[in-house]
Amino acid sequence: MLIVKKFGGSSVADKERIMNVAKRCIEDYKRGHDIVVVLSAMGKTTDQLLAKAYDINPLASKRELDMLLTTGEQTSVALMAMAMDYLGVPAVSLNAFQVAMHTTSKYGNSRLKRIDSERIRHELDSRKIVIITGFQGVNKYDDLTTLGRGGSDTTAVALAAALRADACEIYTDVEGVYTADPRVVPNARKLKEITYDEMLEMATLGAKVLHNRSVEMAKKYGVPLVVRSSLNTAEGTVVKEEVKVEGMLLSGVAADKNTARISVIGLKDEPGIAFKLFNVLARKNINVDIILQSVGRDGTKDISFTVDRTDLREALDTLEENKSRITAQKITFEDNVAKVSVIGAGMMSNPGVAAKMFEALYNAGVNIKMISTSEIRVTVLINESEAEKAMVAVHDYFGLED
Amino acid sequence: MLIVKKFGGSSVADKERIMNVAKRCIEDYKRGHDIVVVLSAMGKTTDQLLAKAYDINPLASKRELDMLLTTGEQTSVALMAMAMDYLGVPAVSLNAFQVAMHTTSKYGNSRLKRIDSERIRHELDSRKIVIITGFQGVNKYDDLTTLGRGGSDTTAVALAAALRADACEIYTDVEGVYTADPRVVPNARKLKEITYDEMLEMATLGAKVLHNRSVEMAKKYGVPLVVRSSLNTAEGTVVKEEVKVEGMLLSGVAADKNTARISVIGLKDEPGIAFKLFNVLARKNINVDIILQSVGRDGTKDISFTVDRTDLREALDTLEENKSRITAQKITFEDNVAKVSVIGAGMMSNPGVAAKMFEALYNAGVNIKMISTSEIRVTVLINESEAEKAMVAVHDYFGLED
Repeated sequence: MLIVKKFGGSSVADKERIMNVAKRCIEDYKRGHDIVVVLSAMGKTTDQLLAKAYDINPLASKRELDMLLTTGEQTSVALMAMAMDYLGVPAVSLNAFQVAMHTTSKYGNSRLKRIDSERIRHELDSRKIVIITGFQGVNKYDDLTTLGRGGSDTTAVALAAALRADACEIYTDVEGVYTADPRVVPNARKLKEITYDEMLEMATLGAKVLHNRSVEMAKKYGVPLVVRSSLNTAEGTVVKEEVKVEGMLLSGVAADKNTARISVIGLKDEPGIAFKLFNVLARKNINVDIILQSVGRDGTKDISFTVDRTDLREALDTLEENKSRITAQKITFEDNVAKVSVIGAGMMSNPGVAAKMFEALYNAGVNIKMISTSEIRVTVLINESEAEKAMVAVHDYFGLED
Repeated sequence: MLIVKKFGGSSVADKERIMNVAKRCIEDYKRGHDIVVVLSAMGKTTDQLLAKAYDINPLASKRELDMLLTTGEQTSVALMAMAMDYLGVPAVSLNAFQVAMHTTSKYGNSRLKRIDSERIRHELDSRKIVIITGFQGVNKYDDLTTLGRGGSDTTAVALAAALRADACEIYTDVEGVYTADPRVVPNARKLKEITYDEMLEMATLGAKVLHNRSVEMAKKYGVPLVVRSSLNTAEGTVVKEEVKVEGMLLSGVAADKNTARISVIGLKDEPGIAFKLFNVLARKNINVDIILQSVGRDGTKDISFTVDRTDLREALDTLEENKSRITAQKITFEDNVAKVSVIGAGMMSNPGVAAKMFEALYNAGVNIKMISTSEIRVTVLINESEAEKAMVAVHDYFGLED
């Protein structure tokens, strides 16, 4: 088997953890497998490099930031190769140039375009463990680029696709994907399997186990992912196209507190107003989530929607600037809200999920502010202070613990 | 003019020094010159990376060490580009892959073979300051290599040759090349000019301003070097093929304390013994310097020579192992010795230099243990404790201060 294994920054934060990861990889190597390891920068390295950069130039160019940040993963892979060598197993580290890992030209948030697998195959053929820098690539100008948040997961999935790997294992500090955050819902259950689509909804809704881009890429190329712990050998969660139906309606409950509600009051009830409103936000790259339109007083209408809380300030400023253009009388907001969602591919054929969720929340005394649904998800906006209570209530009501 | 400027690790050790270097480079840029900057890793970065590596694997492979160490210069060049950008001047950093800087395949101590100048010229044409990682290259396997000690100087000289630069400025923490170490000989004088050959002898003999490989390369390609301070704007020392004769016999006095004397006593007086003796040392890569052969007792001979003090232990062990093979009766050594030399292209046509030096040492009461000469150098081995006294005496006697 050819196995791609990805370890994040905390898994290689110091000598002991590097040796631990090296040992785990060597176990599979000694079973006769071909092993490709993808690493992030050690611990807080990336943050420290960014701090140095911004200290010199608060407006440092993305091109030079990428040149700087990519040293982080190169350090990790070199040290890991030394660790494996110390443990008696031949290993070789490769950076984005050496692979080569071709990306789009955009700095700071580029996309992988193509991976040359020749060098990797050559090293695997000589029975070496191949250790590759995650998160980084090279663009058409021969400049270093980085893939943005969760980039190392994407590197691992792309490598697994390019090498037609038999497995792609993403090692994290949790044992897999749970029906809810175990810190909030103590009886949350680890899932054996979950579909790509469910995983995408989970990730979007705040279960930060895998980055969406890596899941999208895995779905696109049919790469089966395994999410598992770097700290123990417990079986993780498999993410794939279809999972066995075990009477499972839902795969989990997720909460997202990085949200805020904006209401634009007293808009003229005429065509094009909603377009103008969301267009000014789109031009600032502000993503809008749940949208609700209601009839206001005197023939006007009100539009409410949610944005990431980190975008709230900019969204409000933009709307104020364009207040007359979008014919708004008043703009209000709430930033102490949270989204709680239930996710499950099974609900596509079961229309009662939303009603059952509202019932659970009613029983728990949680007030619902807004509602949004997709084919495999029901999301409600509630007070942030009630998010944990809501998660536990919904998790219990659907019986997700068994 | 196209100017290559090289700054060492201490010149870019922190934010303040990086900004200082950026400002100096920008001055020349604003005069209309094309500027290429070569940087070493910041401060003690290389030592810190080595410590991390050896902590994980005391026998870390040179291939992976190079992969690790090359992150150091990449960090420097990225931060420097940000600093220049902050100061309003367009700059771009390039690493060994991007240039590309082709070297021999040997890790840890490779040689530059060829530099592609296309990318650099392209960036210069768009009026950018180009900042390049010193010390590193890429070999035929697409692996990163390092050039060994003084490597960044060599990078700068090689770039100056490849780009046919009008000047190659090596910035250090001293103002130039002196007639002697100013810490030892207070009235030492800064030289305006010195020949490549004199510089080579100076470097070999402990005046660590420039690394020999960079001077050899400068001589080979006729690159005029300027050695000057990164801390002030004083004119430095020009190193070139021929210097104006100003009645100058000598260019300087140098001392080297990294030396030890070994005497091999009672060797059979027959052909091939000296060959065997120095052959066993050569096989261990131990360089032998001054050699003196004398007649011993009872038809035997004694051979004395100097080695780097850092090689003394290994040299003695090797000789003990081969004692019977080289027919030695006894091996003795002295490690409290020093070499003091006078260097000057002018002495080629002036046979009195050696005699004058011995006279100076006699007057100062310094005993001479061994003597070695080349066309432009006279070296004596003396007690280490008398090295400073000897330097001052010789410097004064030849009137080098004016």
